[in-house]
Amino acid sequence: MASNSPRFSQLPPDSKLSLRDQICEIISTAITSSSLSYDRPLPSCRELALHLKVSRNTVFAAYSRLIDMGLLVSRDRSGYFVNPEVAQLSNAKITQSKKLNPDTCCPVQFQTNELVPIVNPLDWQEYPFPFIYNQIDPDLFPVDGWRECTRQVLGRKQLTNWTNDAVESDSKELVQQLRQRLLNTRGIYADEAEILITLGSQNALFILGSIFSSLFKSVAMEDPGFFGARNAFRMAGMNMDSVPIDEEGIIVDAIPNDCKLIFTTPSHQFPTMVTMSQTRREDLLNAASANDFIIIEDDYEAEMNYVTQTSPSLRSLDDSGRVIYIGSLSKTVSPGIRLGFIVAHRDIIKQARIARGVMMRHPPTIVQEIVARFFQLGHYDAHLRNIERRYTKRWYAMNHAISKNLNMLSQTATVGGTSFWLTGPDSFDSSLLKERLKPRGVLIDRGQDYYLHKKDKRSFRLGFAYVPIANMEAGVKIIAEEVNRLL
Amino acid sequence: MASNSPRFSQLPPDSKLSLRDQICEIISTAITSSSLSYDRPLPSCRELALHLKVSRNTVFAAYSRLIDMGLLVSRDRSGYFVNPEVAQLSNAKITQSKKLNPDTCCPVQFQTNELVPIVNPLDWQEYPFPFIYNQIDPDLFPVDGWRECTRQVLGRKQLTNWTNDAVESDSKELVQQLRQRLLNTRGIYADEAEILITLGSQNALFILGSIFSSLFKSVAMEDPGFFGARNAFRMAGMNMDSVPIDEEGIIVDAIPNDCKLIFTTPSHQFPTMVTMSQTRREDLLNAASANDFIIIEDDYEAEMNYVTQTSPSLRSLDDSGRVIYIGSLSKTVSPGIRLGFIVAHRDIIKQARIARGVMMRHPPTIVQEIVARFFQLGHYDAHLRNIERRYTKRWYAMNHAISKNLNMLSQTATVGGTSFWLTGPDSFDSSLLKERLKPRGVLIDRGQDYYLHKKDKRSFRLGFAYVPIANMEAGVKIIAEEVNRLL
Repeated sequence: MASNSPRFSQLPPDSKLSLRDQICEIISTAITSSSLSYDRPLPSCRELALHLKVSRNTVFAAYSRLIDMGLLVSRDRSGYFVNPEVAQLSNAKITQSKKLNPDTCCPVQFQTNELVPIVNPLDWQEYPFPFIYNQIDPDLFPVDGWRECTRQVLGRKQLTNWTNDAVESDSKELVQQLRQRLLNTRGIYADEAEILITLGSQNALFILGSIFSSLFKSVAMEDPGFFGARNAFRMAGMNMDSVPIDEEGIIVDAIPNDCKLIFTTPSHQFPTMVTMSQTRREDLLNAASANDFIIIEDDYEAEMNYVTQTSPSLRSLDDSGRVIYIGSLSKTVSPGIRLGFIVAHRDIIKQARIARGVMMRHPPTIVQEIVARFFQLGHYDAHLRNIERRYTKRWYAMNHAISKNLNMLSQTATVGGTSFWLTGPDSFDSSLLKERLKPRGVLIDRGQDYYLHKKDKRSFRLGFAYVPIANMEAGVKIIAEEVNRLL
Repeated sequence: MASNSPRFSQLPPDSKLSLRDQICEIISTAITSSSLSYDRPLPSCRELALHLKVSRNTVFAAYSRLIDMGLLVSRDRSGYFVNPEVAQLSNAKITQSKKLNPDTCCPVQFQTNELVPIVNPLDWQEYPFPFIYNQIDPDLFPVDGWRECTRQVLGRKQLTNWTNDAVESDSKELVQQLRQRLLNTRGIYADEAEILITLGSQNALFILGSIFSSLFKSVAMEDPGFFGARNAFRMAGMNMDSVPIDEEGIIVDAIPNDCKLIFTTPSHQFPTMVTMSQTRREDLLNAASANDFIIIEDDYEAEMNYVTQTSPSLRSLDDSGRVIYIGSLSKTVSPGIRLGFIVAHRDIIKQARIARGVMMRHPPTIVQEIVARFFQLGHYDAHLRNIERRYTKRWYAMNHAISKNLNMLSQTATVGGTSFWLTGPDSFDSSLLKERLKPRGVLIDRGQDYYLHKKDKRSFRLGFAYVPIANMEAGVKIIAEEVNRLL
């Protein structure tokens, strides 16, 4: 490179970008960081191509791109320059900034809190047998359909639909599709004013916790139960009452008399996957009327039923307005899109919408519009059938592997969901099992993390959504070996 | 249509979808709602084409599409049927659900709260002169660049990057790009552990309110100030102290002695757009050290400077770790994507990350990845220059129109931002002005909504980001007419 030209480092060996885009990246970064002078030409295509070990055409394509974008200009016979308009408008070069010493003490001290973090290793995908929960198999995702929806939604005509600040409103089309394709399969009729889109079900729980914490001091929860819900209600300032469960779901008689708010997961109890029986559902609704309490129904994995038909939602059985329904698209579309929703009495939704506005305004419009289109074109329905089909096979395979290899443990009887719940004898410690399995490439969720008070160490959970059928039995056999050593 | 075929209604006249996609929509909806029987054929292409008044090819294309998706099957000589696998797996038909009477009373009564909602009419785009704030001009948005980034990010190879549950981590690439292209222009050096991605700056404020409400009873705020911040701190459970401002920004001497947390908008004071002077910045930092308080700096519209160079951020002048920096991409990319970030001491970020996890886990991975790519390829830089260029012209045009037509009012001197702040004489009432302007097609923001205690009625704000230069003077003249009637 000519000595008067700016120097660029080599292209990184592991970039995900094309060569042209990598060159665009390094040049635009150099402009932003003001390390290119405005009065000197950039290296010629030939020079930069030699330096970066790419073809001249690639450099030419990158330069042309940057000219189109307005970052560079080309001057006859002198070469390529940074666009002087960029120079004029660029922010001041900040030269006087103080670099904070990384060892500076934090000026505030936080108290320790009781929130239970999610503790899966971030590199769980590197393990051959990740029997953990809440991940989907990316092979199932209809990428082409999703890309088609994105392409349609990002059309110039639709631009204002997703670039504008939607203030506190939701995508009308998404709300309509949820009513038509999702809620109606759960027996729920709700109009627009009874639905709020949330950033996943975790966000739905926190919003509800926030609006109810001024009215009720505590919430009754299934124990073991969903720690995400406990965290949300606790951070919103509420206390927890623990309600035990049995093979039919939450034990209604054990709900405290002064309870005004209860959280439950009837479709599949989190974490045991027990489906609430029809009698129990009726008992719970009757108790709600008699004792005047509100029910938050998290319709957890409602779609994942392999042995029997799906049970109707509590909300569909209620005519008193006491049931608040929470749904999520994390399992049926993807957890990375973070979309969920609340269905409730319009007065509750009104409060929830104000609270959501203060927390974050609204879930990104662009994601709402893409998902609405995904529903509209039928991709959601087709994808849901695919998931059900695939998970049915996996559930039976996993059930078989567990019955065959882990029959020294007690398996909680279930008819759906994406995991199994296993319990050892009194002396059994699932933390120890978890520790011993990890170096053997097997990840499991220990049960004690789901308990509120009495930390029962005997149970653990095996999620099967991510482990391919071909690997299941091998993984379960390793678990069996380690269980036998612990018994 | 043959009498034994299912009936479909006509295609809606106003759909945004192609004809083929509209047919896919009505058929997939009919399958979901179980209104198609599985043992009877659908109408033939010819029949349905006649019925819907489209070409046979269009119906054929839709049927082929639905076969590809697995929702329909084609049987030789018998025609098209719903895929029996869909029938087997479909959720139970819910027949027993109770329809909630829309007049049912809400089972809980909420107290009225002091949260200030945003009150712009949702149809603001229909007004010829929407001098309101917080909207961007969609014509400026680089749709093609954005679509390119989306296409790249949605590639099958990148799938797991955005479909997986990211638990509590952020997009590494986005964090890297923010450091390299945005924070460095603000004089800020921060490592990964000092940055948290949020769902816009509103979410950043609420997260900070939540983690500080257990430590501090109150927060000191500029008055007039940003109601979004007031709402966030109030909902998090904090009280407000009011601190007046002058032409150099927040009045440091007026900060209460026992104040431990202060919120400020130094780049452009919200809502007056006053830029905090260098002396005032130093005074504020010295006061923070002397009185041991934390500063939350919302770097509001930092990029929008037309007359002078951008001032360095408070965070870049601080070596004590007392400044928490909040930034947003709503103005420089789009408010619909809802991305912002917090830069703070790693211990504060750690707490903020836990709180964010409980509220909503994380901003959608897919949006983070697209925006990261948007930065990486240089689109952000190019777009920012475009915005600056366009807004500079608009700012001068608006400034000119105001000086010429509204000189009976006092205009607060500013050097940037996307709005102007005007104040009438003592008797002036901007609510009245707002009311009279609306039927004339002019929207303005009245000043009193930004005050905490003393609701000063004299001021109003004119945002110019959305009104084209050609319309500005006409709009300002209408305002002048109505102002004159009120004086």
